[in-house]
Amino acid sequence: MVSYLAKGRINGARLWGDLMTLGGITETEQPYTRRSFSAKFVEGRRWLAARFRDAGLDVRIDAGGNLIGRRTGRSPDAPTIMLGSHSDSVPGGGRFDGMAGILAGLEVARTLEDVGVALEHALEVVDFLAEEPSEFGLSCIGSRAMAGALEEGQLEQKGPGGETLSSAIERMGGSPGRIESARRRDIRAFLELHIEQGPVLEARGLDVGIVTAIVGITRLELRFVGEAAHAGTAPMRGRHDAAIAAAEVVLAVRDLARTLDARGEGYFVATAGVIDVKPNAANVVPGEARLVIDARCESAPLMRRFVDDLRERAVAVATMTATELADFKVLSDNDPAECDPMLQRLLVESVASVGCSAMSMASGAGHDAAFVSRVAPSAMIFVPCRGGRSHCPQEWSEPAQLAIGTELMFETVLRIDLAALDASVTGER
Amino acid sequence: MVSYLAKGRINGARLWGDLMTLGGITETEQPYTRRSFSAKFVEGRRWLAARFRDAGLDVRIDAGGNLIGRRTGRSPDAPTIMLGSHSDSVPGGGRFDGMAGILAGLEVARTLEDVGVALEHALEVVDFLAEEPSEFGLSCIGSRAMAGALEEGQLEQKGPGGETLSSAIERMGGSPGRIESARRRDIRAFLELHIEQGPVLEARGLDVGIVTAIVGITRLELRFVGEAAHAGTAPMRGRHDAAIAAAEVVLAVRDLARTLDARGEGYFVATAGVIDVKPNAANVVPGEARLVIDARCESAPLMRRFVDDLRERAVAVATMTATELADFKVLSDNDPAECDPMLQRLLVESVASVGCSAMSMASGAGHDAAFVSRVAPSAMIFVPCRGGRSHCPQEWSEPAQLAIGTELMFETVLRIDLAALDASVTGER
Repeated sequence: MVSYLAKGRINGARLWGDLMTLGGITETEQPYTRRSFSAKFVEGRRWLAARFRDAGLDVRIDAGGNLIGRRTGRSPDAPTIMLGSHSDSVPGGGRFDGMAGILAGLEVARTLEDVGVALEHALEVVDFLAEEPSEFGLSCIGSRAMAGALEEGQLEQKGPGGETLSSAIERMGGSPGRIESARRRDIRAFLELHIEQGPVLEARGLDVGIVTAIVGITRLELRFVGEAAHAGTAPMRGRHDAAIAAAEVVLAVRDLARTLDARGEGYFVATAGVIDVKPNAANVVPGEARLVIDARCESAPLMRRFVDDLRERAVAVATMTATELADFKVLSDNDPAECDPMLQRLLVESVASVGCSAMSMASGAGHDAAFVSRVAPSAMIFVPCRGGRSHCPQEWSEPAQLAIGTELMFETVLRIDLAALDASVTGER
Repeated sequence: MVSYLAKGRINGARLWGDLMTLGGITETEQPYTRRSFSAKFVEGRRWLAARFRDAGLDVRIDAGGNLIGRRTGRSPDAPTIMLGSHSDSVPGGGRFDGMAGILAGLEVARTLEDVGVALEHALEVVDFLAEEPSEFGLSCIGSRAMAGALEEGQLEQKGPGGETLSSAIERMGGSPGRIESARRRDIRAFLELHIEQGPVLEARGLDVGIVTAIVGITRLELRFVGEAAHAGTAPMRGRHDAAIAAAEVVLAVRDLARTLDARGEGYFVATAGVIDVKPNAANVVPGEARLVIDARCESAPLMRRFVDDLRERAVAVATMTATELADFKVLSDNDPAECDPMLQRLLVESVASVGCSAMSMASGAGHDAAFVSRVAPSAMIFVPCRGGRSHCPQEWSEPAQLAIGTELMFETVLRIDLAALDASVTGER
């Protein structure tokens, strides 16, 4: 891969240096932490804005609190090619999730300058505000605003010390009073580079993933009510043990997910991550059990199939275990976001031209691109990460892996710019 | 059953009245609660001691804090027939568990007086100190002392406010400094009447259960360690989901227990009452799962078989789920206590003579009789309780059900007294 880098136009060492510097801006007692709206977050953004300016970009903060660096296109009112991700982190997270996507975009802008390319389009590099779940009970705050999807009620949600999200956005330099102005109608294409956060690319030894869709996420809550009883005096026959029902459903979730995934109609995963048993005492037959199921899929019909099949299985389990299925609730249900087919095609062409290896894959995690895709053709580039680990200090990608992904982004930006001249890119939507 | 009562020698109405009065001595904000060592407990005992005296019994408190009422036998140094149970309750418990056994014993003593029977043996009615798990981390404190099984270290265990068990026993009128004097060698027979705390007698419409053995209890802790992963980006194949392993074991515990119980070699129950999953978050594949298993059985070989089979299954589950069985610990392991065969035979004969219906059954719960059986021939009479419920305010037995059980106890005491004359009762052991 080192030999590849020698051919690259982007400057991998410069990119890596920036990434390590930004990663170093962290709460010292819990690396790597830069929570949205915190002092460290503001410090990180101040540093980012300076780098944007160094690269010749015009820097502004939009009404939704997104930090934007803009490079003017050849025509002053040309539509925009947008690159970006987010600089906030989870508590005790890593240095790549989010940051890599902003700095890859910045590196593309710098490389255009270095090689003296003037694009037809304007180019923007964006740090979306608060992609990770924030203290205000909301994620993807900036990209929601850019999609016109940040609602009035959400702006009034309260965070630490009773501060409203509205006033927190204002504190970040945004203008929540005219939030609708953050909604964009001028984006010709949006590209987000991100670490995969999963093990697939590394396991297959591939350089990049071209994302086909960002999965829809459905959260279900199941509650079985049985009858608490003395673990010594209640005979095995005649028990109403809610933990038995829960165990049957945990296995059913796995079996259904495996079956649906194997159908080849799209990526499918489902997890029983929360199991709460009551009273959870050694000498009491459990009288109640609650499960939260997280299912993710790039196909809405496949998801409906899962929910229907699981409901049927849960009802059968209740009968079989002499318990009652007291709840089968959909806690949340987000549709999948498909990546733009034309952008995916340009990415595939760029892979060939750059000479790297790639596969198409779904994103099992949510991203800002899912919201931006509501108002603009959007696509994503995944780069491998070690052991698939993310949201932890061990999160890691190799410098060369990031350089290849960024080179691919650079090549694709050139192709988008050219394709747009041919008017062959899907237009605004 | 009302017609039966007309034939009875014991006074069912007097017994019931006492039971309701004692039950009324409760923490008012959480009926029915009379925790060992509490002010309410002392109040209950003061009332009990007065009833013992009313019945002509000599009242004392032994070194272990047991409240004892004694009726002298015909020979001043005759061995003792002992009847009793405990007057403490769990928090928010019922009015029968424990209390019924003391008051049944008291009613037997009163009836002997009423009908003018002078037994060869002395008769003692006992309220054992702190049978339920106490604030000092120990249960069956009084019966342990009577069996010579209350150890020095246990006396130093600390309770609320740092008080030692030793000083708490002293506060109850006991003499922990000469705790060995509580150990008894003069008990010819011990009988404990208790509610079944299970559903079997009620379901079969039987008057009493003759207990064959008090189960041994083995507690196991199992811990599976997998690998926490992102619930969206970790494909179904290649996961190391510790909750899947836990679910498989929960079902294996049930299946093994059913199989062993069906062998007909003794009562067997097992319960996975504690399930702790980490991190227990909807969007994380569980990286760790802990189970506590409670298994109870009247046969020690059957219990060993269960532990061996479960270990084998757990190892297989770990392999199958790509997790590690990090712990398979025996937390505690008590042998079953068999009830004395000769006393069981006398109980069966008394059932015929009293004209009630009965079955032999194991006790799935622990009782003071398990400790007393270490130093004296012991047996138990179970009476039905509604819905098998216990350790809750709904705990209930009908007055006639208690009266039948007490009548059986009265009859059996007469037979023990006679049998002893024949020297056919198993001697001290």
